[in-house]
Formats: sequence, structure tokens, C-alpha cells
Amino acid sequence: MITKNEIKFVRSLRIKKNRINSDQFIVEGEKIVDELINSSLELVRVYSTSSKHESLGEVYTKILKTNLLQISNLTTPNKVVAIFSIPKPDKIDFTSKIIALDNISDPGNLGTIIRLCDWFGIKDLICNTETVDCYNPKVVQASMGSISRVNITYLDFKELFSEKKLNVVAADLKGESINKFPFTKNQIVVFGNESLGISPEIKKIIKNRVTIPRYNSNYDIESINVANSVAIILAELKNRPTGM
Amino acid sequence: MITKNEIKFVRSLRIKKNRINSDQFIVEGEKIVDELINSSLELVRVYSTSSKHESLGEVYTKILKTNLLQISNLTTPNKVVAIFSIPKPDKIDFTSKIIALDNISDPGNLGTIIRLCDWFGIKDLICNTETVDCYNPKVVQASMGSISRVNITYLDFKELFSEKKLNVVAADLKGESINKFPFTKNQIVVFGNESLGISPEIKKIIKNRVTIPRYNSNYDIESINVANSVAIILAELKNRPTGM
Repeated sequence: MITKNEIKFVRSLRIKKNRINSDQFIVEGEKIVDELINSSLELVRVYSTSSKHESLGEVYTKILKTNLLQISNLTTPNKVVAIFSIPKPDKIDFTSKIIALDNISDPGNLGTIIRLCDWFGIKDLICNTETVDCYNPKVVQASMGSISRVNITYLDFKELFSEKKLNVVAADLKGESINKFPFTKNQIVVFGNESLGISPEIKKIIKNRVTIPRYNSNYDIESINVANSVAIILAELKNRPTGM
Repeated sequence: MITKNEIKFVRSLRIKKNRINSDQFIVEGEKIVDELINSSLELVRVYSTSSKHESLGEVYTKILKTNLLQISNLTTPNKVVAIFSIPKPDKIDFTSKIIALDNISDPGNLGTIIRLCDWFGIKDLICNTETVDCYNPKVVQASMGSISRVNITYLDFKELFSEKKLNVVAADLKGESINKFPFTKNQIVVFGNESLGISPEIKKIIKNRVTIPRYNSNYDIESINVANSVAIILAELKNRPTGM
């Protein structure tokens, strides 16, 4: 049985402040929950309408469908809601290629970008502190389990890019074509906000710019979606002889 | 003033059947409405809380904020809702590269793919009849105006691919790497449903397969989002010496 206080607590994890205070986040749906149970993440609790997870022992709580509707974030909940501990990020490996996100605000975009990093074997995704929280339930769902396989670190970009000697390039509407830019083995590529692009203070620090060529003489189209840009640049990065 | 019947009619355009019967579709928000007014599309009516569009003459109807809330599809409506005629698609140019969508169901994905076709100068987007309607309000909003610049045609893929001699390749999880596949000038690339991929009957007809290499030895990640796949393949197609 789930108690009233537990229902309140699970629901409270929709809010970032509560996730930070408890160091826990929620995931929903059989497929992704099973994937995360089999990952390195620490399972705190599973609330399920099926008895499939009973073997997990004391972390398992059988719930009624009405309870599921109370704790779920989805319009069509799928059997199970689980709580995991938020892991401490590993040390960033600055010798490999890194994707950096500056003020990304859409949870769906962040989730999709995490999935892309996973697909293309990018170990480190770094986000500035204004970027949407990766343990936001919508991000977790959109990442489709990839959240457990990509090391995500939030930090102050101004500090990082000013202090460290790094190979950083900003994806921008004006810059060198991605087909010609000399990406390095330890390249960091920074992507900016969905409507505003890279923030002015970061633009001041990063001198290099790459752009995805537009093949349309008609300039009415202003940009493409940021997750699509990440996809195209990752495919290009990985297709270079420098490889991984 | 907007009449009760007009409110009913505008709201009815959320449903495909009603769009087909009236040959009209709705668009919302100042930016995209202005873009479509300046396109080749035929404007039928503009309902606006501002007087900015008054100069358009008799197609303009000033409305109250309460009316806007009644006719809008958005949670935060933005001043204007317009109705346009659904254009008859142009003849498909089979001598150029074409993107083909087989059973795409998510409106956001279709909107994003239309925007990508626009960015990469793809003139023709063809969809099988089961793919979500491109005049669905969510598709139109996600296309961000690109819907007026890409020629979208719905047709029976089984018929098309069986009868015509075309250079068709299906994007699939197993196939030749996109970096090695000999794309032609008149290449048609088919993308399948978000969860199910290309439908079995189309798979039977199309023999060629391309795949986006996965750079992760861990096979837990099963796929990437279809719009991201389109983005990566379009960037690759356009970067070939065969060019446009």
C-alpha cells in the first residue's frame, strides 16, 4: 500500500527544489524503469500495479490503478512509477569530445540530446546552470533510458571557458561550415538557447563558430531545431578520421 | 465581431475531416501568420486582438481576448488566429532528392521534418496516407512557416514504389552506413514510424537500406528520434559532390 504522504512525496519530485533536497527523481513506464533498474543507478522505490517487480523485495510497493493516476505525470500512465537516487556526476573527461548546452529550456530537446550523446558515444554532456534540469520528469522520459549512460554535469560556463584552456567552438548561424571546421579530438561544441542562441557573455569568450550550411537560397527559414543541430554535428564529428 | 458559428467553425478545423471538407486550416501566432500571409498561400480570414492586420481589409476580424481563448489551440495564445486555404500540391519532381515518410504519427516530428526539408532545400516531401496530416495545427505550428515552402503530397507508397522505377532507399537500423551509400541525384529516402520503423509491406518492395552508424559499443540504446535521423541523412546527402 502507498500512503498519503508517499503520494505527496512522489508528486513533489516534479519540482526541481524537491529533487535537490531529496537527491531523488522519478521515472515512469515499464520499459524505461526496467532499463534503469539494470543500470548503475540506485533504485529507491518501485510503485507498480503489476506484480512483475515483486522480486525486487522491500523497494517494491504494489499500488492500485487509482494510485497510479495520482502519482503519474503522464496522461496515459503505464503500470509503474519508480524513484531513483540522483547520481553524483563523474569527473569530466576533457580529453574526449564533449557537447555543451547553454540555456537549453525545452525538456524534450534536452532528453533527445541525451539520447543522441548516447548513440554517438559522447561520454560527457555539460550544461550551464540555467539549462533545464536533466532530472525533470519530461527530460528523463524523452531520454528513453539514455540518462543512465551519459555523464551530465551542470556548471558555470563563464568560469569554465575563461579559466581552462579548452578547444571550444560555438554552433551559430554564422560561422565556418561544419564540413570544413578542423574539429579536434578533445573538441567541445556549445549549443545555445532555442530562440536566442548562445548567450552574449559566452559569445564573448568563445571565438570559434561553426554553422550547418543552409541549402536554400530563400532566407525565410531562420534556423533548425537545436536537437537536430546536435544530431547533424555529432554525425559530422564522428565521421572524421580523428574518430572517437 | 466574431459570431458563435465562426467560433465553432474555427474550432472544427482541429479535426482532419473538417479540414478536408472545407479545404482550410488554421495557424496561430503573429510571427508564423505574418510569414504565411507573405507566402503563396491563400489567406481566408484573420482573427486578431490587435489592429495590426486591419489593413488586410475584409478578411480581418477584430476579436476580444476572450474570443481568442475560445478559438486558440495553444495554452498561451498569441494575438492572432488565421485561416488559410489548403493548397493543391504541385507535381512531384522525381529528378530531385525526395524525403518520404511512412506512418509518421507524431505531429511535432512531422513539423520538424518539414522545417528540415526547407533548410536543406528539399522541394518534395511525400507522405503515405497513414502519416499524420500536415495541416494538423500542431504540425503547422512546429513547421514554423516552412509548410508554405515545401511541396507535401500524400499518396499510396505501395502503388508508387511498385509501379515507378525510382531510386529508393529505406532508413533502417540495419543497412549500409550513410557514409558509404551511393546516394543518387534523384534519391528518395524513406523513414518509418517512430516505434515500428518502415512498414512490412513497404520493406518488401524496397531492397536498399541505409543506417546511421552507432558509436556506442553498448547496445542498450535502440534508436534515435526520426527527425534527428532525417537531419543527419539530409546533411550527409547535401554534403555529397552530386550536390542538389
